[in-house]
Amino acid sequence: MSYMYLEDFYVGLIRTSGEYTVSKDEIVEFARQWDPVPFHIDMDAARESIFGGLVASSTHVFAIRSRLIHMLPVKTRLLAGFEFENLKLVAPVRPNDRLSLTIETVYVRKSRTKPDRGIVKNCLVITNQKKETILTSREVILVARRKTD
Amino acid sequence: MSYMYLEDFYVGLIRTSGEYTVSKDEIVEFARQWDPVPFHIDMDAARESIFGGLVASSTHVFAIRSRLIHMLPVKTRLLAGFEFENLKLVAPVRPNDRLSLTIETVYVRKSRTKPDRGIVKNCLVITNQKKETILTSREVILVARRKTD
Repeated sequence: MSYMYLEDFYVGLIRTSGEYTVSKDEIVEFARQWDPVPFHIDMDAARESIFGGLVASSTHVFAIRSRLIHMLPVKTRLLAGFEFENLKLVAPVRPNDRLSLTIETVYVRKSRTKPDRGIVKNCLVITNQKKETILTSREVILVARRKTD
Repeated sequence: MSYMYLEDFYVGLIRTSGEYTVSKDEIVEFARQWDPVPFHIDMDAARESIFGGLVASSTHVFAIRSRLIHMLPVKTRLLAGFEFENLKLVAPVRPNDRLSLTIETVYVRKSRTKPDRGIVKNCLVITNQKKETILTSREVILVARRKTD
């Protein structure tokens, strides 16, 4: 399997994932375990909520964000991820929504102190099958440089 | 069960959760499902990573954040959560870490258009058993007002 290293990133690079379909059962099961707010697990509470129906927990949407990153064509040689600037949940995720991810690189630089790594900032946008924006985020990650002997 | 409504929030309000212990199995299981990066699921890869050992996925830490919110003494009558400003993962979470949450309210206002709700901003800090900061975040939530007939 090939990986993307720091040298492969450049400002303006855009990558897109495949689609991930979110089932009603997954929404309820995830929320039961991690975020048991009534409108994420109970259909009556969901109907009476401001969403008018069942919606995924923000934590669940964040987990789907990870899974979509793993669905990109080429993986990143990630060393760590550590900052999310302005993570916004723009619209809710509902059962059977099909989500996909677009990532644009907006900043790349080598580490000033460690020769084996560098910093990449990416803007992430998750959209649904209606092309509505679901989530936006700007993320800072630490990426390995290629070994050059 | 009693709930906190908009009227119960004020700038400077500080709340703390109980402790949540993160097991090695939970770290591996969560990452396998949502974020299968080698250093979250494989002990050898973890040892060779910049963390020097197994660490929880950022997505997992975010899910624990939800669970800690549910461990606060009183629940919030939440209508929606929609923005996370400067979500930072300051230090990694390792097996058997005991995490707890402190939330400080920094902003409260009634909705200008809807009489049944208002906006609250909270600063969240998750710390471990050594009092090291794990995660910081500033979050914007929509909270119900008490019904007054």
